[in-house]
Amino acid sequence: MAFQVGGDDLRLARIAEAIRVIPNFPKPGIMFQDITTLLLDPKAFKDTIDMFVERYKDMNISVVAGIEARGFIFGPPIALAIGAKFVPMRKPKKLPGEVISEEYSLEYGTDRIEMHVGAVREGERAIIIDDLVATGGTLCAAIRLLERVGVNVVECACVIELPELKGRERLGDRPLFVLVKAF
Amino acid sequence: MAFQVGGDDLRLARIAEAIRVIPNFPKPGIMFQDITTLLLDPKAFKDTIDMFVERYKDMNISVVAGIEARGFIFGPPIALAIGAKFVPMRKPKKLPGEVISEEYSLEYGTDRIEMHVGAVREGERAIIIDDLVATGGTLCAAIRLLERVGVNVVECACVIELPELKGRERLGDRPLFVLVKAF
Repeated sequence: MAFQVGGDDLRLARIAEAIRVIPNFPKPGIMFQDITTLLLDPKAFKDTIDMFVERYKDMNISVVAGIEARGFIFGPPIALAIGAKFVPMRKPKKLPGEVISEEYSLEYGTDRIEMHVGAVREGERAIIIDDLVATGGTLCAAIRLLERVGVNVVECACVIELPELKGRERLGDRPLFVLVKAF
Repeated sequence: MAFQVGGDDLRLARIAEAIRVIPNFPKPGIMFQDITTLLLDPKAFKDTIDMFVERYKDMNISVVAGIEARGFIFGPPIALAIGAKFVPMRKPKKLPGEVISEEYSLEYGTDRIEMHVGAVREGERAIIIDDLVATGGTLCAAIRLLERVGVNVVECACVIELPELKGRERLGDRPLFVLVKAF
């Protein structure tokens, strides 16, 4: 797999190198981008969080929404550093309180993500965090959830983008910020 | 529900107050301790992480293991702050690389948690993080996983303990550190 990093930043090269590629997971033909090896490298993991924090710390963000399960790993350290709340977006029936939900398409069938009612307020400014953007279906559902309750989704932020799957186009005019592109 | 905090620390009172109790989730009779409201309070969430960091920063910990999914929220900020790696312990078939696994009992049947082979080295010192300890079954399985590969489990750390379920006894002589006890 070839990685392309967004600039000449040495941190990005280190982050890209720390991501492992596992062929044929979860099924034949898929080259899975495994961020668990990035988490084993405290310096590269810290660089990852720092780069998001540097981008968002002065953008008046009060909501960091993280998508289950790997968005739960990257979102909270960013939220803590910029003084925002962390809002988990979960698979169905995991959140204990009253929820709103949005459906998204899978290769076969559909799935849903859910958010607690009352977790965010109208007019808040949010970023949405996940480890990877592929087709962008889950991110689009997360955007709809937040916009339904009047939240301004400032940007989606992922560690890795798979540009061939055109998630960026699906997001339309919503900005997408990524650290590493994988081909 | 009555909360009992471990000392006269004002931070603990704020953390306890930020946790919401949802009756009858996931089934009738269960008083569910919901930490998502703690995550909505940036000051209380930061206090939570700070209290773990203050405890572990000088204990020569190189592994923070977090149990899916809520351990993924609390573990990474602690790992980043103390310069340790973060090792996710996941439900079956979620980790893409080669894994080892341990079974644990549920009310009906069993489940498993998995850890990547090669994530940790013999002789490393680890803490295990989850949001809540109930019967302690999952924590015991996580301890077995780490000890199988020669890691020294220094302590399990949770935000909330339900003492009536006797998880602490099940852990035997493994130390358990919690911030809040819920009755």
